[in-house]
Amino acid sequence: MTDFGMTIAATDGAARTGELTTARGVIRTPAFMPVGTAGTVKGMYPEQVRGLGADIILGNTYHLMLRPGAERVAGLGGLHVFSNWPYPILTDSGGFQVMSLSGLRKLDEEGVTFQSHLDGSTHRLTPERSLEIQGLLDSDIRMQLDECVRLPAPRQEVERAMRMSLRWAERSKAAFGATKERALFGIVQGGDQPDLRIASAEALADIGFHGYAIGGLAVGEPQDVMLAMLDTTVPALPLDHPRYLMGVGQPDDIVEAVRRGVDMFDCVLPTRAGRHGVAYTRFGRINMKNARHADDRRPIDETMDWVPARDYSRAYLHHLIKSGELLGAMLLTWNNLAYYQHLMAGVRAAIAAGRFDDFVAETKDGWARGDLPPA
Amino acid sequence: MTDFGMTIAATDGAARTGELTTARGVIRTPAFMPVGTAGTVKGMYPEQVRGLGADIILGNTYHLMLRPGAERVAGLGGLHVFSNWPYPILTDSGGFQVMSLSGLRKLDEEGVTFQSHLDGSTHRLTPERSLEIQGLLDSDIRMQLDECVRLPAPRQEVERAMRMSLRWAERSKAAFGATKERALFGIVQGGDQPDLRIASAEALADIGFHGYAIGGLAVGEPQDVMLAMLDTTVPALPLDHPRYLMGVGQPDDIVEAVRRGVDMFDCVLPTRAGRHGVAYTRFGRINMKNARHADDRRPIDETMDWVPARDYSRAYLHHLIKSGELLGAMLLTWNNLAYYQHLMAGVRAAIAAGRFDDFVAETKDGWARGDLPPA
Repeated sequence: MTDFGMTIAATDGAARTGELTTARGVIRTPAFMPVGTAGTVKGMYPEQVRGLGADIILGNTYHLMLRPGAERVAGLGGLHVFSNWPYPILTDSGGFQVMSLSGLRKLDEEGVTFQSHLDGSTHRLTPERSLEIQGLLDSDIRMQLDECVRLPAPRQEVERAMRMSLRWAERSKAAFGATKERALFGIVQGGDQPDLRIASAEALADIGFHGYAIGGLAVGEPQDVMLAMLDTTVPALPLDHPRYLMGVGQPDDIVEAVRRGVDMFDCVLPTRAGRHGVAYTRFGRINMKNARHADDRRPIDETMDWVPARDYSRAYLHHLIKSGELLGAMLLTWNNLAYYQHLMAGVRAAIAAGRFDDFVAETKDGWARGDLPPA
Repeated sequence: MTDFGMTIAATDGAARTGELTTARGVIRTPAFMPVGTAGTVKGMYPEQVRGLGADIILGNTYHLMLRPGAERVAGLGGLHVFSNWPYPILTDSGGFQVMSLSGLRKLDEEGVTFQSHLDGSTHRLTPERSLEIQGLLDSDIRMQLDECVRLPAPRQEVERAMRMSLRWAERSKAAFGATKERALFGIVQGGDQPDLRIASAEALADIGFHGYAIGGLAVGEPQDVMLAMLDTTVPALPLDHPRYLMGVGQPDDIVEAVRRGVDMFDCVLPTRAGRHGVAYTRFGRINMKNARHADDRRPIDETMDWVPARDYSRAYLHHLIKSGELLGAMLLTWNNLAYYQHLMAGVRAAIAAGRFDDFVAETKDGWARGDLPPA
């Protein structure tokens, strides 16, 4: 594969740090990918997202195929040109959102037929069409179509979905074909069943992908189940390929997954929570809607090196959020993405320095401390 | 009056350009003041607003007294500290929004009692309380409480409101007292009745204010009525004091008012229109929601020196607005405020060069041309 490859610069236990090289730029790992659902990381200018240290963002195939449409984006020069983001982009397959957002849907061996949540129009997604759409978007990393089962679920159902996802993995690889300078990731399924997870991982490794995602987690199960599945799954994946835990997660989930050898993450939490008035900080999540901030002149955390944590009072942020002002969502989204990237930079440095466990312990101490006492 | 004064550097007909000096900075006139209703210019970081050339913004007393509350803002260091805007701020009196936004209200000689549009709670605004609130906010330019009548209205009603506004002007001046380093403006009323406008202007000049606003226009009357009122009113105002046309307006209204000697403007149009998908440009207003933009790779206007007009495709802006994405409102608000400040810079330069009429004619030719033909 041209222009795509992973180098591991350092390891600390199962955790590793390095670089993923793509045709559009290098991704420092472990990496957090801000979610740009509909071709925009909500509430952020693209240069801001880049400036915070994001090497790659995620785009959602489901949303983009419905609006503005994949063929339209292709006609406009692809997703990078369209959205003023010339750096790497990963697109998902669309399958997860078909399951979670669309109305009536019918799954069969060939693919899934569904109704748009926007206008009820009928669409069809198959492994081949998903890869075609991702090609039209011209994303740098593309995902196979899979079927994700919400947990808890009967083993029989989990296994059926995992087996079909493997068949779709083969079809996805065939559809991806000899595409140059782009990468295709397979997705491990198997729910909360260790043997199914291992079987899925080994079968995907046999097919051969540029990277391996772990799907079907953070879908309702407790954290310990998710971590147990990582303990089981990661060792069954090729050592020299990137591992991507889809849709995860809270900062605590991320550091625990890094500890188990995961390299890539995406999650809507920092952006969505920001729009809803929640700030991620060294001292955990702070709900800026809380009335205790109304007269507090202090910033969220003056030791942080980004504007919304350092240069705005809690009272003002509280006012903006309570008033539904755009600037409130803009500032807290900015803060949260800054915090996530700051966390990932800390993770990478700690692994490189061979002190990842200490870093995690210190970081968790901060989260456990909670917010500042009242002024 | 300390630290407040106007110098007129050049005139061209009745139009004039100069500087208004305040304790918090110089305002180049003619000036457009972006509206920061609730302590934020919606969808903009304060540094952006400043960077576009805004020397002063407006805050709404009505909104701020209800949320977060004037005493609270004072306790937090005043509106400038609260909202991270260390430059001049003008606050209105709150009267106009009481009339247009609040629920049940009762006007009497002393003031107005009204119910908050937020929670129905009852509040009282008098000339004295309005000035007290504006003092708590610590705005640089403060407005007398007045009564604004929506046009058309019977002459008797217009005259009654104008006379009461004059009595409130005197009380406002007394309440402002010997406040140092801040300015108080009186407000001309009189509806569409020339003799009442002149009487109001002359009576205000006799009372004596730091500046004179023209209120009760752009409230439903045709543009020619508004301009006729300016033709009548402005000559009755002191030559060496700033004149502020409240709540105006469209770019065409602004240049015509400048032609008649107005120095200051505020309006929600550039910000509100931006949130609703309308771009102000050299070639008039462009509705970015229109389907003709969906596949248009061209920027709004590549000759403009600001990011949203130059660096984003129409297709992308169309997509963002259609999708309700925050970035769409952010980029079009930015564009519109940039265009308004660009227009005011052009106005000032043209007056200084003695070619204001030519500038207006050229500018109107652009607006009349309309948008680019389809690609």
